Amino acid sequence: MRDRPLILVTNDDGITAPGIANLIRLMKTIGNVVVVAPNSPQSGKGHAITLEDPLRVHSVDIFSDVEAYECSGTPVDCVKLAKNVIFKDRTIDLCVSGINHGSNAGVNILYSGTMSAAMEASLEGIDSIGFSLLDYSFDAVFEHADSFILSIVKAVLDKKLSGSQLLNVNIPKNSDRGIQGVKICKQGDGMWEEEFIKSEDPRGNDYYWMSGKFVTKKHGEATDLWALENGYISIVPSTSDLTDYSQIEPLKYLLKS
Amino acid sequence: MRDRPLILVTNDDGITAPGIANLIRLMKTIGNVVVVAPNSPQSGKGHAITLEDPLRVHSVDIFSDVEAYECSGTPVDCVKLAKNVIFKDRTIDLCVSGINHGSNAGVNILYSGTMSAAMEASLEGIDSIGFSLLDYSFDAVFEHADSFILSIVKAVLDKKLSGSQLLNVNIPKNSDRGIQGVKICKQGDGMWEEEFIKSEDPRGNDYYWMSGKFVTKKHGEATDLWALENGYISIVPSTSDLTDYSQIEPLKYLLKS
Repeated sequence: MRDRPLILVTNDDGITAPGIANLIRLMKTIGNVVVVAPNSPQSGKGHAITLEDPLRVHSVDIFSDVEAYECSGTPVDCVKLAKNVIFKDRTIDLCVSGINHGSNAGVNILYSGTMSAAMEASLEGIDSIGFSLLDYSFDAVFEHADSFILSIVKAVLDKKLSGSQLLNVNIPKNSDRGIQGVKICKQGDGMWEEEFIKSEDPRGNDYYWMSGKFVTKKHGEATDLWALENGYISIVPSTSDLTDYSQIEPLKYLLKS
Repeated sequence: MRDRPLILVTNDDGITAPGIANLIRLMKTIGNVVVVAPNSPQSGKGHAITLEDPLRVHSVDIFSDVEAYECSGTPVDCVKLAKNVIFKDRTIDLCVSGINHGSNAGVNILYSGTMSAAMEASLEGIDSIGFSLLDYSFDAVFEHADSFILSIVKAVLDKKLSGSQLLNVNIPKNSDRGIQGVKICKQGDGMWEEEFIKSEDPRGNDYYWMSGKFVTKKHGEATDLWALENGYISIVPSTSDLTDYSQIEPLKYLLKS
């Protein structure tokens, strides 16, 4: 690792969100920071890529001493453009995504543009970490997590594990209790119970607007949902291999008989 | 299982694509079919959901004797609307998604609206299968896979496995060789090597358009990529749990030391 690693920062809340500014502030203390992030909010875009439309990229001067670009596409588009176009002649040592305004624990990883950007970087062979704060507010406080974020990033940069790392890090909302520590976890079990608000537009046509609440299922101490409920930062090592290995043999039997 | 199971059909190529018409044709021989599918192509939308815009739903009469709705959202939106709004008072026994025009083998599962729709159904506790054909053409031939698709669907409907099934089924393109059989596989290792075509719009502004080719890494007989290259239909049992269990202990050590 070089003395000043090259760190790519992206997010899904858009390049003007406070979360990414906080992540850039922290990463500048560790490495050389470059930014490619969406020019508009991209929450819930999951691993979407833009195939049917052209992508626009503009250099922006909104972070002090940081080379930054805004992109018209999704978070995954941003990472692809960073790797293959904007910084194709430079070696990116780490990709960090976030800090997301809102949880990406449990199954939220699937919907999360923040984590999908990190996963895309890991597919490209770049160690990557998505950071999310359990506070949807635009005015969220981030500083209570500073020292933890710096420790996690330094550990990943300093001591390489085998394969490319992909970490889903979720951080409790700021509170009097403070952060209790860090837990390495598995993804917890929970789901969204959707409600669709039905209404009528000014022309008299129906529309639906997605709403809902996240419901955690029963979960033990080993999960990210438990860790967060109990004041810990959760870290889930994640993978792009979606094979359910436990079902391979039962399925062979099912389809043979 | 009822004599005539209720089968929800969706896709990501849009409700007018030939692939979904072929899947509906087959499912009508097995059960009562209902359709909720996007009103426009949604390839590459992954697990995206629509949070910032209203969703429109319209009943359409384009499939003989089939209740069908087109939706302005993503494939995952379609499944959420089907489950929570349109058919909220009925029990969906199975969700099938596709037949996709193009492969969703290997890591393509992440980008695939077809497979994300199936995964969303499985999160809702509905057994689900995504079908994809390795032929991007609008005029693709589907009939060579008919008997295999019917067998797979009947097996999942007839003989319940534990948990909700989520199967990623990919089908070789029609050829003189014919289909060699069915293989239960793990997800193969490969990635997209992107090229971004740079051009200029009529106003003189630059844009990029994503292109590229899928590169398979070295893979053994156990993977979907191998099966498809050798003329087999591949079935990968898939999961929404993205935890990389192999990294939990190394990561505990890394962050402790």
